[in-house]
Amino acid sequence: MSARPGRLAVNGPRLIADLQALGRIGRGPGGGIDRTSFSAADGEARAWLLARCAEAGLTVTADGIGNLIVSPVFAENIEALPAVWSGSHIDTVPNGGAFDGTLGVLAALECVRRIQEENLELARPVRLVVYTDEEGNYAHLFGSSALARGFSRAELEALTGRDGDRFAETFAAAGGDLDAAAATRLDPSTLHSTVELHIEQGPLLEEREHQIGVVTGIVALGGGVVSFVGRADHAGTTPMTRRQNALTGAGALLVALPELAAAVSDQAVITSGIVAVEPGSANVVPAVARVTVDFREARADRVAALEAAIVLESRAIAARYDLEVVMDFEITIPPTGLDTDIQSIIAEAAAARGLTFSSLPSGAGHDSQNMARLAPTGMIFVPSIGGRSHCPEENTAWPDVENGANVLLDTLLRLGRAV
Amino acid sequence: MSARPGRLAVNGPRLIADLQALGRIGRGPGGGIDRTSFSAADGEARAWLLARCAEAGLTVTADGIGNLIVSPVFAENIEALPAVWSGSHIDTVPNGGAFDGTLGVLAALECVRRIQEENLELARPVRLVVYTDEEGNYAHLFGSSALARGFSRAELEALTGRDGDRFAETFAAAGGDLDAAAATRLDPSTLHSTVELHIEQGPLLEEREHQIGVVTGIVALGGGVVSFVGRADHAGTTPMTRRQNALTGAGALLVALPELAAAVSDQAVITSGIVAVEPGSANVVPAVARVTVDFREARADRVAALEAAIVLESRAIAARYDLEVVMDFEITIPPTGLDTDIQSIIAEAAAARGLTFSSLPSGAGHDSQNMARLAPTGMIFVPSIGGRSHCPEENTAWPDVENGANVLLDTLLRLGRAV
Repeated sequence: MSARPGRLAVNGPRLIADLQALGRIGRGPGGGIDRTSFSAADGEARAWLLARCAEAGLTVTADGIGNLIVSPVFAENIEALPAVWSGSHIDTVPNGGAFDGTLGVLAALECVRRIQEENLELARPVRLVVYTDEEGNYAHLFGSSALARGFSRAELEALTGRDGDRFAETFAAAGGDLDAAAATRLDPSTLHSTVELHIEQGPLLEEREHQIGVVTGIVALGGGVVSFVGRADHAGTTPMTRRQNALTGAGALLVALPELAAAVSDQAVITSGIVAVEPGSANVVPAVARVTVDFREARADRVAALEAAIVLESRAIAARYDLEVVMDFEITIPPTGLDTDIQSIIAEAAAARGLTFSSLPSGAGHDSQNMARLAPTGMIFVPSIGGRSHCPEENTAWPDVENGANVLLDTLLRLGRAV
Repeated sequence: MSARPGRLAVNGPRLIADLQALGRIGRGPGGGIDRTSFSAADGEARAWLLARCAEAGLTVTADGIGNLIVSPVFAENIEALPAVWSGSHIDTVPNGGAFDGTLGVLAALECVRRIQEENLELARPVRLVVYTDEEGNYAHLFGSSALARGFSRAELEALTGRDGDRFAETFAAAGGDLDAAAATRLDPSTLHSTVELHIEQGPLLEEREHQIGVVTGIVALGGGVVSFVGRADHAGTTPMTRRQNALTGAGALLVALPELAAAVSDQAVITSGIVAVEPGSANVVPAVARVTVDFREARADRVAALEAAIVLESRAIAARYDLEVVMDFEITIPPTGLDTDIQSIIAEAAAARGLTFSSLPSGAGHDSQNMARLAPTGMIFVPSIGGRSHCPEENTAWPDVENGANVLLDTLLRLGRAV
C-alpha cells in the first residue's frame, strides 16, 4: 500500500517514530496513558510537540485557551487567506491509549512538514491545530467549544476537573490568563475548511475489512447526572428494613441501562462511567449516589427517547426504594453532518491509492463537530484493532496509520490547492 | 431525673456547653461535622480539648500514636496503680454528627473534672482516654488497636486514608514519629478496667422508651472489597452487546445486598458505602468497579454465612455479565462480650437514679472491643433520636446526655473505689 511513484507521500517511518515517542509520555506501568489536560504529562507532551515543530521550521502560536496553531512558511500573499486546518488533540482519558487524538495531530504534523519540506505552492495556508482538553476534563470538547461558541469568565470560573480541581487555578498555575481564555473565539472568515484523521474507536471497519472510513457525521450525544437521595445512617446499627440507601437505587439504575438502550434501538448506547457516593465511608449507609450518564444515537429524536427512558426508570426506582431522585441533564448535542464535498474528496483519495473504504458515522464526539459549525469539515477514520479505545490496548496497525496519513495529505492538498 | 441530694453528680450545663462548643469545630454549612483523624479540624478539636484539661488542672499525656490520657491529681501512693479508663474518640466520619464519640469523651472529662474538684479519695486512678482515629480513616479502631495489638512500621507505612493520602506522610506532617507509633502498646497490668459511654446509634432504646442501655457485647464484623473486572471501551463506539461493563456487575451486587442479609437473619446487615470505578471517566465503559462491603451479625457463624452469600452472589453476577471477580475479605472481627460485673454495676447505677434501662448488643464497633482484650470493660448507651447516627441529624436529648454522664460517674466511682 505504499504510494505510487510520483505521488507525494508522508514519511511513514518518521510518523511512526513520532507516535512511539509521544506514546511514552504519561505512560503508566500498566501501559495506559494518562495525559489529562493541563497535567504535568500533558505539559510534557506539548513541550515535546513544540520541539518537533521547531526542528521542522514550523511557526507555532497559541490562542487564549491553549489551542495551538502550527504553520509552515507560506508566501506573503497567501498567509492571510482563509486556511485549511487539520488536527486533533494530545490529551487523553485516564489510562487511555496512544492513538486517540494523537494520531490526528501527528499525521497532520507530518503533512505540514512535507508541505514545508517540498516547499509546495498552495492557494491557501494548510495548518496543524491541536485542540485543548478534547477529553473534557473541564468541559466537553473544551478547546474547540471555545473557538465555536466561547466561554464567559463566569463559566470558566465554575469549571472543575475530574479530580475536583478548579480550572481557574490549574490554568493560572500553568501560566494561563483567564481573561484571554474568556476572549477566545475563532472568526469563521479566517477558516476555509478542516479535516481530522482519527482512529475509529469501534469495530466496524475491522469487521468490513476496510482500510479507510469516510465519516458521514457524528451521533447526537446526551448526558447528565441522576442523583438518588436517601438518608445517611450507621451501617452497623440501622436495620436493613429502615434504610433509605441511595446506592441501592443507583445500583438498580446501573443494571437497567442496557435494557433501556435496547428498547430504543440496536445502535443506542447508554454508559455510566462515574458513580459518586456521599458521604463515602465504609460504615455509613449512603445518603446520596450520583450516577453520571452518557447516551448516544445517530438520530436526535432517539437521544430524546433515551433521556425520557432514563427519567422514567429513575423515578420508578426512587419510588421502589423510598428515595428522592434529582436529575440534571445537559443540553443534547445534536447530530453533526460532515461536509459532503470533503467526503467525496476523501473517498477519491482512498480510491486513487487503491485502498478499500466505506462510509460510517462516528459514535464518539470529536472537535470536528464544533469546527463543522465554523467551516466545511471532514473526518477520516482508520481501523481500531478489536474496536478497542480509551484503554491501554487501543491500537491501529502501522500500515493503517500510514494509509490514513496519506489520505489526509491528499485531502489537505486538494483543499489547499482548490480555487 | 436530677441527682438525689447528697449523691455526687456531673455539672450538666457545663457538659452541654462543652458538647455545643466542640460541635462547632469542623461543622460544615449543612450542619454535618467533618473531623477526619489528623485533619485540621481534628487538630483544632484536640487543641480545644487540651485547653479544657489545662483549665481544670488535669495532666495530659499522649502515647506514640496520639491516644491522649488525661488524669486528675491523685495521691502519690495510688498514681502507679492499675487505672480505670473512660473515654471514646473525637474524630468523626465525613459529614457526621456531634455525639458519636464526642459524648463519651466529654462525659468522661466531666467525671474526672468532678473527681478533681471534689478531691475524691479513690483506691486507684480514674482517667480519661481519647482514642485516635476510631472511625478508621487509616485503620479500623486505629488508636485502640495500637494499644491492644500494635502495628509494625511496615503496616503503618502501608496505610492510606479515605482521600488517598499516606498515613506516614500525614502523621509526620502532624509532628508524629513513626517509630514511636510502631512501638505503641498498652501493658495490660497498668489497666484495672474501662468504661465507655456512647450514643446507641440505633432505634432500640427509643422504641423501648428506656433511658439507659447496658451493653452486653459488640456484634461480629466482616468486611472486604468485591472487585468486578471487565474491559474499558469507548462509551460512544462500543455496541451495548459487546461490552464487559464492570459497573453493571457492581450495580447487580448493590441491588442484591438487602436480600442476602435477609436470608441470614433479621438482625444481619450488609452495607456498601464506597464504590470505586476505573478509569472513572464519563465517556469510558468502566473496566473495574470495586464495591466495599461491611457486614455484621451478633453471631460469628452468621457473619461467616453473610460472607459466603456475598461470594456466591458475586460469582453468579460475574458469570451473568461476562466479568471477572476478585474478592478480598478482611479477617472477621469476632463478637466481643462485655464484662458482666460492670454490666451489673451500670444497671444498679441506673436503677439507683430511678432511670429506666435494659440490655442490648451494639451493632456498631467501638474501641471498647479492643480494650476488652486488655481489661474488664463495660459500655453505657443513651438513646439516639430517631436512631440516626453518622449524619448531621445525629442527636440525643440533653436529659439523656446528663443521665448517661451521671451513670458513667457512678460506675467510675464504684470501679475506682472497689478494693
